[in-house]
Amino acid sequence: MATQLKGACIIGQSGGPSSVINASCYGVIRTALDSGAITNVFGAAHGINGVLDDVLYDMGKEDPKELELLLHTPSSALGSCRYKLKDSSEDDTDYKRILEVFKKHDVRYFFYNGGNDSMDTCNKISKYMQKAGYECRIMGVPKTIDNDLYGTDHCPGFASAAKYIATTTMELYKDARVYDTGMICVLECMGRHAGWLTAATALAGEFGCGPDLIYLPERDFDMEAFLNDVERIYTANKKCIVAVSEGIHDKDGKFIVEYGQENAPVDAFGHKQLGGLAANLIGVIKGRLGNVKCRGIEFSLMQRCAAHIASETDVQESFLSGKTAVEQAVAGVTDKMVGYERSYDKDGNYVCNMKLFDLADVANTEKKVPAEMINKEGNGVTKAFIDYALPLIQGQPKMTFEQGLPRFAKLKKIVAE
Amino acid sequence: MATQLKGACIIGQSGGPSSVINASCYGVIRTALDSGAITNVFGAAHGINGVLDDVLYDMGKEDPKELELLLHTPSSALGSCRYKLKDSSEDDTDYKRILEVFKKHDVRYFFYNGGNDSMDTCNKISKYMQKAGYECRIMGVPKTIDNDLYGTDHCPGFASAAKYIATTTMELYKDARVYDTGMICVLECMGRHAGWLTAATALAGEFGCGPDLIYLPERDFDMEAFLNDVERIYTANKKCIVAVSEGIHDKDGKFIVEYGQENAPVDAFGHKQLGGLAANLIGVIKGRLGNVKCRGIEFSLMQRCAAHIASETDVQESFLSGKTAVEQAVAGVTDKMVGYERSYDKDGNYVCNMKLFDLADVANTEKKVPAEMINKEGNGVTKAFIDYALPLIQGQPKMTFEQGLPRFAKLKKIVAE
Repeated sequence: MATQLKGACIIGQSGGPSSVINASCYGVIRTALDSGAITNVFGAAHGINGVLDDVLYDMGKEDPKELELLLHTPSSALGSCRYKLKDSSEDDTDYKRILEVFKKHDVRYFFYNGGNDSMDTCNKISKYMQKAGYECRIMGVPKTIDNDLYGTDHCPGFASAAKYIATTTMELYKDARVYDTGMICVLECMGRHAGWLTAATALAGEFGCGPDLIYLPERDFDMEAFLNDVERIYTANKKCIVAVSEGIHDKDGKFIVEYGQENAPVDAFGHKQLGGLAANLIGVIKGRLGNVKCRGIEFSLMQRCAAHIASETDVQESFLSGKTAVEQAVAGVTDKMVGYERSYDKDGNYVCNMKLFDLADVANTEKKVPAEMINKEGNGVTKAFIDYALPLIQGQPKMTFEQGLPRFAKLKKIVAE
Repeated sequence: MATQLKGACIIGQSGGPSSVINASCYGVIRTALDSGAITNVFGAAHGINGVLDDVLYDMGKEDPKELELLLHTPSSALGSCRYKLKDSSEDDTDYKRILEVFKKHDVRYFFYNGGNDSMDTCNKISKYMQKAGYECRIMGVPKTIDNDLYGTDHCPGFASAAKYIATTTMELYKDARVYDTGMICVLECMGRHAGWLTAATALAGEFGCGPDLIYLPERDFDMEAFLNDVERIYTANKKCIVAVSEGIHDKDGKFIVEYGQENAPVDAFGHKQLGGLAANLIGVIKGRLGNVKCRGIEFSLMQRCAAHIASETDVQESFLSGKTAVEQAVAGVTDKMVGYERSYDKDGNYVCNMKLFDLADVANTEKKVPAEMINKEGNGVTKAFIDYALPLIQGQPKMTFEQGLPRFAKLKKIVAE
């Protein structure tokens, strides 16, 4: 048992937001406010930038009811950043400043809520503090809809995005079949290097409303094979729904979104309108099949912020990951990320256990969709993916509505002296 | 009191679907199945095409529980069409065929569920049946997310689309503000001639998460004024959210989406298939402001099929409009559309009453956003719009979920002999 370390804590949020990053943030804040060891709870404005600029919100001054609404408030309530710290061996200016701000506020706990880059930031700060002999416990609280963090069974945020994508795919499936004329839909999901979100469209297929074809960036995309697939399905059914990851690329590594930009339309100022991937593929499909009715649909930012259709399982697990980070840090743990380990109870029900991972292992490693979850043809997913993902999307969000619309947390954000 | 007319009924669905067109369809089916006057309840496959092709589903053979799930199943469960009947004076082939099928199945009630064009279809069929001396009661059951039907206070389907749009706008607002860097979002809503759906983004503003600028097709769009608006807001706040109707046009009537895409395809009714407006405007904004971070977001088909965030008020009213159509027809009424009239009770609470409108008045008339709901500058809406729309989006959908995803109705669709 470590000696109890008394002092303030900082929680910061970094990287692209999700529907539940505030749920894990709330897990940290609530647990820290209730902890005897932690003297003050500060929220960093826009992640590490808030530390560098000494803009720290005093979370103790917030209304507890508003804080609780963070569970179902999308995006990063404290503000996010994409600032990347240099190696301290190259340039330690930022680190000196962080140490100065930590000392000023007697910060002994630092929690950072984000994806790979955020774990890298945690790791670098921790190393520097150790070298400087400043006692501070540093924990990563994961987040990424991309589901690509190393070690953890899944990432907070993925399941809610997956649930939005699967639900919307089901609804679009119904819509796309309404006429007895032909219709091809191309659904574009986020995911530059990992196809987890695109694979989530297959969950809709469990209920008879899934896409016909799914292409992930884990496999090289072959345009000719793709067009053959679409033509075969369209000819047989007059309907075809295709799901694609934004990051699909050919065998030479060229992104498919870059294809056909030669023929992109031009706007009023003469700039080329670089359409999205879905629009691009539709152009190619029409080139093959003639003027068939097509729709390209981008799930765009909605897939990462649609808190109204979040997975309550994801919300609760995210809260628990934040809570665990504080409890473990107070107990003496440092340099870890709180991730998830899956098990099944004796009735075969999914159980999610909190598990600690070394920050150094997590930082800058990507987890892709494994081969056994992708079908042989590379145009769909296997049952292994469904078995993996389905337990994660259970439960409707216990969101508060006011006058028919979501009631999101309103924070006062009082800056600490 | 009219003499009771015994016979079968047909319910058909037409035009673009919505989240609640099946709720009004269920109102018709359930009430007709329970009516002593109606001997058989047939669902026409793909609207009037199902009548012409004599493909009629026997609704009496469906599982009542599955039928009830229609309340929260998006899109048109019976299938839709965009078939336009010719004037019978020009060519009465279709009308003769419809009469033949009606006679074959002893159809004495015809309910048609759709928008302006569908009311036109109802009206034409009714006129022909009268001329032919075939007794048949014909009622329109309205539907259109566009909210542009004449007479009725609002249209079934509008509120659910509005609720999706307002909720999503709130979530996107949160997302678009996550970084402390600049961000411009252009949200594109459906609406060729009427701006009701785009105006619905303003509901998010009631909760502090609305767009800065809103442009409806009711006003001529001036590109220079638009760019000045965006520049002013962006310069002041580093953030700017703009909502636009797909149908915005300049003072010469030229659609803004056509600035750069002259050759959009045309549907069976001669409507241009518009799309890509958001992307187009972003190109123009970058032309003015340089390479600022911009996102164009199309609510695309989601806005008309996102049943998971439908307005329960809309669901219940839609059901009631279908129910009323049957009750009124059985009581002797014909040639009417069941619309809504708004009143307020003594406590000022919104009340929706069913009201009958002449088909001939409704057919092919469009109701636009009135001048008092648009601000002087033409870049926002007034409180009059909020007061109008807010009562309509109340209530969360009482949807059934199964394994974390919506459980939609599964119909057997047994074709009548």
